[in-house]
Amino acid sequence: MPSLRQYVPILDWGRSYSRDDFGSDLMAALIVTSILIPQALGYALLAGLPPVSGIYAAILPLLLYALFGTSRALAVGPVAVVSLMTAAAVGQIAEQGTAGYATAALTLAFLSGAMLLAMGVLRLGFLVNFLSHPVIAGFISAAGLLIAARQIGHLLGISGEGDTLPEIAATLWAHLPETNPVTLVMGAAATVFLYLVRGTMARGLMALGLPARPAAMIAKAGPLYAMVLATLVTWGAGLEAEGVKVLGEVPQGLPPFTLPDLSAQLVGDLLLAAALISVVGFVESVSVAQTLAAKRRQRIDPNQELIGLGAANLGASVTGAFPVTGGFARSFINFDAGAATPAAGILTAFGLLVGALALTPLLYFLPKAALAATIIVAVLGLVDLAAFRRVWRYSRADFAAMAATAALVLTVGVKTGIMVGVLLSILLYLWRTSRPHYAIVGRVPGSEHFRNIDRHSVETHPDILTLRVDESLYFANARFLEDMILAEVAAHPEVRHVVLMCPAVNMIDASALESLEAIVARLDSAGVGFHLSEVKGPVMDALKRSEFFDHFKGRVFLSQHEATVTLGQTPAPAARP
Amino acid sequence: MPSLRQYVPILDWGRSYSRDDFGSDLMAALIVTSILIPQALGYALLAGLPPVSGIYAAILPLLLYALFGTSRALAVGPVAVVSLMTAAAVGQIAEQGTAGYATAALTLAFLSGAMLLAMGVLRLGFLVNFLSHPVIAGFISAAGLLIAARQIGHLLGISGEGDTLPEIAATLWAHLPETNPVTLVMGAAATVFLYLVRGTMARGLMALGLPARPAAMIAKAGPLYAMVLATLVTWGAGLEAEGVKVLGEVPQGLPPFTLPDLSAQLVGDLLLAAALISVVGFVESVSVAQTLAAKRRQRIDPNQELIGLGAANLGASVTGAFPVTGGFARSFINFDAGAATPAAGILTAFGLLVGALALTPLLYFLPKAALAATIIVAVLGLVDLAAFRRVWRYSRADFAAMAATAALVLTVGVKTGIMVGVLLSILLYLWRTSRPHYAIVGRVPGSEHFRNIDRHSVETHPDILTLRVDESLYFANARFLEDMILAEVAAHPEVRHVVLMCPAVNMIDASALESLEAIVARLDSAGVGFHLSEVKGPVMDALKRSEFFDHFKGRVFLSQHEATVTLGQTPAPAARP
Repeated sequence: MPSLRQYVPILDWGRSYSRDDFGSDLMAALIVTSILIPQALGYALLAGLPPVSGIYAAILPLLLYALFGTSRALAVGPVAVVSLMTAAAVGQIAEQGTAGYATAALTLAFLSGAMLLAMGVLRLGFLVNFLSHPVIAGFISAAGLLIAARQIGHLLGISGEGDTLPEIAATLWAHLPETNPVTLVMGAAATVFLYLVRGTMARGLMALGLPARPAAMIAKAGPLYAMVLATLVTWGAGLEAEGVKVLGEVPQGLPPFTLPDLSAQLVGDLLLAAALISVVGFVESVSVAQTLAAKRRQRIDPNQELIGLGAANLGASVTGAFPVTGGFARSFINFDAGAATPAAGILTAFGLLVGALALTPLLYFLPKAALAATIIVAVLGLVDLAAFRRVWRYSRADFAAMAATAALVLTVGVKTGIMVGVLLSILLYLWRTSRPHYAIVGRVPGSEHFRNIDRHSVETHPDILTLRVDESLYFANARFLEDMILAEVAAHPEVRHVVLMCPAVNMIDASALESLEAIVARLDSAGVGFHLSEVKGPVMDALKRSEFFDHFKGRVFLSQHEATVTLGQTPAPAARP
Repeated sequence: MPSLRQYVPILDWGRSYSRDDFGSDLMAALIVTSILIPQALGYALLAGLPPVSGIYAAILPLLLYALFGTSRALAVGPVAVVSLMTAAAVGQIAEQGTAGYATAALTLAFLSGAMLLAMGVLRLGFLVNFLSHPVIAGFISAAGLLIAARQIGHLLGISGEGDTLPEIAATLWAHLPETNPVTLVMGAAATVFLYLVRGTMARGLMALGLPARPAAMIAKAGPLYAMVLATLVTWGAGLEAEGVKVLGEVPQGLPPFTLPDLSAQLVGDLLLAAALISVVGFVESVSVAQTLAAKRRQRIDPNQELIGLGAANLGASVTGAFPVTGGFARSFINFDAGAATPAAGILTAFGLLVGALALTPLLYFLPKAALAATIIVAVLGLVDLAAFRRVWRYSRADFAAMAATAALVLTVGVKTGIMVGVLLSILLYLWRTSRPHYAIVGRVPGSEHFRNIDRHSVETHPDILTLRVDESLYFANARFLEDMILAEVAAHPEVRHVVLMCPAVNMIDASALESLEAIVARLDSAGVGFHLSEVKGPVMDALKRSEFFDHFKGRVFLSQHEATVTLGQTPAPAARP
């Protein structure tokens, strides 16, 4: 029976919470908050929403995940890929900047939350398995590239909108002459600063005598320093007058209470996008959570994770935000900084709340170019060209699915890319198994082992043709099986017995059963005996439930050795008239 | 190299054609023509077209199939299921009886012919494998029922149109009071006559002293006698004046020369329907052809069959007809009547041509009720309830796909039904393989065999946990593999070595490779050794191409016995700090 504690994990870790835990969690929360504030602003802009909604997306959702999630280190909130998907979905429905756009975004969060919750309660977590790793990797790399491309306009102070790489390139090219040189210098400086901080700040601090761990932690907050510096310079030098675009007025106060618009029209338009966002968000989040849990010998419950992320998205939808999930880089930082329990998330949410209540006036002079630089540095880490090379070397079929996903995400759109990727990986799998590997086998001399006659030096009996099929028999290869056996019998006219060796047959579905019955009938009328060997227990049980053995006149041998010994002394049946 | 003879099989059988062959072929052609004429008229009406287009569909298409097809007994022409699919597809585009309707029907034949031809030339015959047998069986049964239901209106002399069973029932119910009693008597009499002829005529003729074979042949032409009788009665008794609907004026002469309308709009509207008609028609046709070829130890070439059927459909499109394929019952009759070569088809086409040139005036008084009776008797043979029972007993998953297909064909439409069936059978297969069977195995005492500890009494070593997974490892079960191994290790804390036994693993895709790498890393950091045994050659070759062995610290054993002996003496690796 599921208990309350199963669905509300805080009841579990909450009762053993110690002062030590609090110290670790507070430290982690401070670091994550300093990274999260600029990212939240940037990802809100990426999603096409006002910057403050990114802050809202990191308050109630974090609290709800801390209550219902099972990962102790996952940092939930706005993330780049999901924000991009939000922009792509909502951009087709409403004009950016309108109230309808914001409503559609929070409705998307609501639908996604409801789906995740339903999948969790119905234990449908296995559905995400249909997203293969190469498809996810191709999608994430392409999304990272697309997000970075969308920031280039901000770096130059020009318009660089678009849903695909060619669109973005065309917009940038058309507006290139309007480049604002001051913005360009600001953007370039921020980018260089961020790369330098990443690479050298920790080492610099250590050279100044700081221990390694605090030095690394302080260096992690690089984006925050960049924001503060850029804001001070813009304010001090009056760069707004020079054409540098700043965030401007950011509303101060608690997140608003909002309600999704559940009209049939809007729900219908957003349903597919919500499903894809749920699945992609969940897969990313659960992979990070599992990796971090394994490092500390903890376990997470994928179905409970669905509930945690579902609750977080429902929270986003009632506080004027947009879809959220567990962030990749941020979660690793949270873990490294020592987050011991989900309380770190609660403290982070508190940090963002303080930001929303008190700090938003300080954001007025924050230049968009500096935010764009933060995002670029963050998302270029998602682009993993080595993964493409690795998959290419290992499997051309997987690479095809990966490359198609990435190419379509870049040139047609995120939704098309991921859907074609999923379909392609399923079709390629079916195609691979539709022409299974099979071998004619013979006995390794002096043993009871049977091996491929093409790979090994083995003995065969002239009367007996033994075929080993290395695949489950099901509809996609049922016809292949018929063709293959009849062709092999035609090629070996001296053969009087055919043995189908089934150690690798894990299942025989109704289509393959019909094919086997057709083979039985055809070989029988040709006067060739047909037998099975090494059939697995569950497969045999299923065959016995069918009418297969009403027509089957051959024998089922427990081992191939037994088959060879017995059939070597058995005459073939007579051909039917 | 493909030679001309490969693509034009008539060059092959034509050069050895004998007078004996001609005798057999002529006899078969006579019988098939007598069955084909009423069926062609009826199936044209079923497709929503003028009766004569059914005759046209059995002239040029038959000639072309005889030139390009490989089956010596397949009787190509209009068939019930494809005519129903034509009506469903074209009915959504144009009003029945308009020129646009006829054009759409022949365009559908053109598109279907072009697709079949392309699939044949590109050797894509394997694509039809994705249509599982239960889905086809469910589709055919439901289509037979739907076609029979559509004829009931003709039997009663009222309107009984509709694309689904509920629609047809509603139309019939609304018009029931208009039932024409004379038509009803005529329809009922024809139905009874056809069933009687089927059952008793051959026996009656034999009682009169005729040998069995000619008696059976003469009885086969039952539909023709029914047509002749019904026409004579209608004409003699002046039943047209009593409200009995007759075929009326049927144009006399050669088939017209027509061209398909290849406007983007129409092609777009018909493309999906054409693809489904191609696949369904091909699957039916090739199954019949293979069954008949096997009976005479002949072989057919599925890719050349695609070319033959493609040519036939292109022929239909330029002679005012509609999509055609190989008919089930008619081919068996052709075979039984002794058809020796495709020349039987040429002679049948000639018979239909004579019909079109000379006999159409005789069709004026043919009552539609009698035609409907012929169709009902023909298609009720397609409804195979025993197949449902058989599949239910064998596999619930296959039954689900079959039942869903049939139910949707009856209630929503043929296109939806077949598409959902295909998707469902793919998803159910993926679902089945996403939670593969696995077993903890131990040694059968005194042997080198390893078996499931739950099914057999076996010995295990306390330090070693051996898991045998009975499925290829791929994206749909990659996460399951991770969860399963980590859960089993957590449940056996005393274990120092885990061996994954892979005799049933036929493939490891890139997703599963990543999962294996994750398992390697997690077990390594927990101080548990991870090893593989009985890895197949092709799988091992692929693993060696990857970076898997860069991180893998365990061993790969050729046999599980070797693994147990070696690891029983090996201490576990130390846990990583």
